[in-house]
Amino acid sequence: MKNMGLKQLTLVSPEFNKLVSEDEAIKRAAGAEDLIHSARLYNTLDEAIANCHVVIGTSARNRKTPWPLMNPRDCADRMLNFLSVESFSQHDGTKPHIGFLFGQEASGLTNEELQRCHYHVNIPAVSDFSSLNLAMAVQVICYELRMAFLMQSEQPDVPISSVLSPESEGWDEPAATVAEVEGLLAHLEQIMIQTEFHDPANPRLLMMRLRRLFQRTHLDQREVNILRGILSSIQKHIQ
Amino acid sequence: MKNMGLKQLTLVSPEFNKLVSEDEAIKRAAGAEDLIHSARLYNTLDEAIANCHVVIGTSARNRKTPWPLMNPRDCADRMLNFLSVESFSQHDGTKPHIGFLFGQEASGLTNEELQRCHYHVNIPAVSDFSSLNLAMAVQVICYELRMAFLMQSEQPDVPISSVLSPESEGWDEPAATVAEVEGLLAHLEQIMIQTEFHDPANPRLLMMRLRRLFQRTHLDQREVNILRGILSSIQKHIQ
Repeated sequence: MKNMGLKQLTLVSPEFNKLVSEDEAIKRAAGAEDLIHSARLYNTLDEAIANCHVVIGTSARNRKTPWPLMNPRDCADRMLNFLSVESFSQHDGTKPHIGFLFGQEASGLTNEELQRCHYHVNIPAVSDFSSLNLAMAVQVICYELRMAFLMQSEQPDVPISSVLSPESEGWDEPAATVAEVEGLLAHLEQIMIQTEFHDPANPRLLMMRLRRLFQRTHLDQREVNILRGILSSIQKHIQ
Repeated sequence: MKNMGLKQLTLVSPEFNKLVSEDEAIKRAAGAEDLIHSARLYNTLDEAIANCHVVIGTSARNRKTPWPLMNPRDCADRMLNFLSVESFSQHDGTKPHIGFLFGQEASGLTNEELQRCHYHVNIPAVSDFSSLNLAMAVQVICYELRMAFLMQSEQPDVPISSVLSPESEGWDEPAATVAEVEGLLAHLEQIMIQTEFHDPANPRLLMMRLRRLFQRTHLDQREVNILRGILSSIQKHIQ
């Protein structure tokens, strides 16, 4: 939850002092103990969800009596959209309260609990091994909320764009120009001729293949300089 | 892994018999022990990735020396695309081998290990609490691979489409027709007149609001029948 930017944990009749002590829970939280300290505790589900506008429960797909159901991605997109809808919040000026409801590790949500949910969300696991651990289900839902939040943010708090080459935002060195790459190729060709690997009278497709390789690689200027330096040092030794 | 349809676990110098016994590992696998039995064990990372065509490692965003880096969604899409590219598999007719590399729980991947990766993948956690547990990072990556697989499948093994009302594939009852909903509204109007809640001479926006509500709800035929039944039983008692 904390990794994914979510803060409000609500527990219904938690098993502190039974299966797991509060100390043990804090130890396992590994740095997220603030979420345990600020967790709201309720005796019943009714009290826990009373101030929510929308409640979503994790569920298998039920073919018998289908309930409004989404996959985690669609669900996260829809809920992030709800957050910016005024009709949810106009009565007190705050954001709408959207609760994600998870059941116990061993048994999941009961039918009664599932019926308290406006929507169900289903993680599309393989059909012959479809029951996720509680922590894993929570991670998937929190991750999808995080991705939906970042993709809808105009100024996300962390970047999510790919960095694949000097042509991407975030690379450390400027991209090489065409002239710089051509200079590298000419230098390499010169050496290949000197070492008799390459015969300009019978060029085959050698230079074409090398040009394709180095153009595809999107070299940065420092890489061109390194490669030119290597070629120069080779040249000194073959002369 | 097994929930998300992945099967080949490879372990480099695992800590069986040290921190966790193999028995304990099998117990914790909770039904996925086949993946432990079929896990490939290697002494070194070199051996483990030798037959891979692409290796991807989980990493923070490194601004100093950026490596080709993607978010989990882009990465999963790209890797699923690789699986259908012939140039990867033409030498032995099998699918390309794509390895996802995760580091130890406490320390993650070393710089040396990260440099063996063709791509890095970064889970965009909040910047002041960005280090996920190993199991959580594995779950996120496996989930994104699963979603990419399902979205690229023409016949996915489980459905991922939303089921929101009788107009969605997968609802259990046929959607009500316009005439059926109009019949319900007329029936309701009749009762509201009988109970003097509604004055047709001074209709305000009452019927408009009720029509909007019941049209928006996308009632199914059985729901219309239930509501008509309720109205009929009320009618008997007020006559």
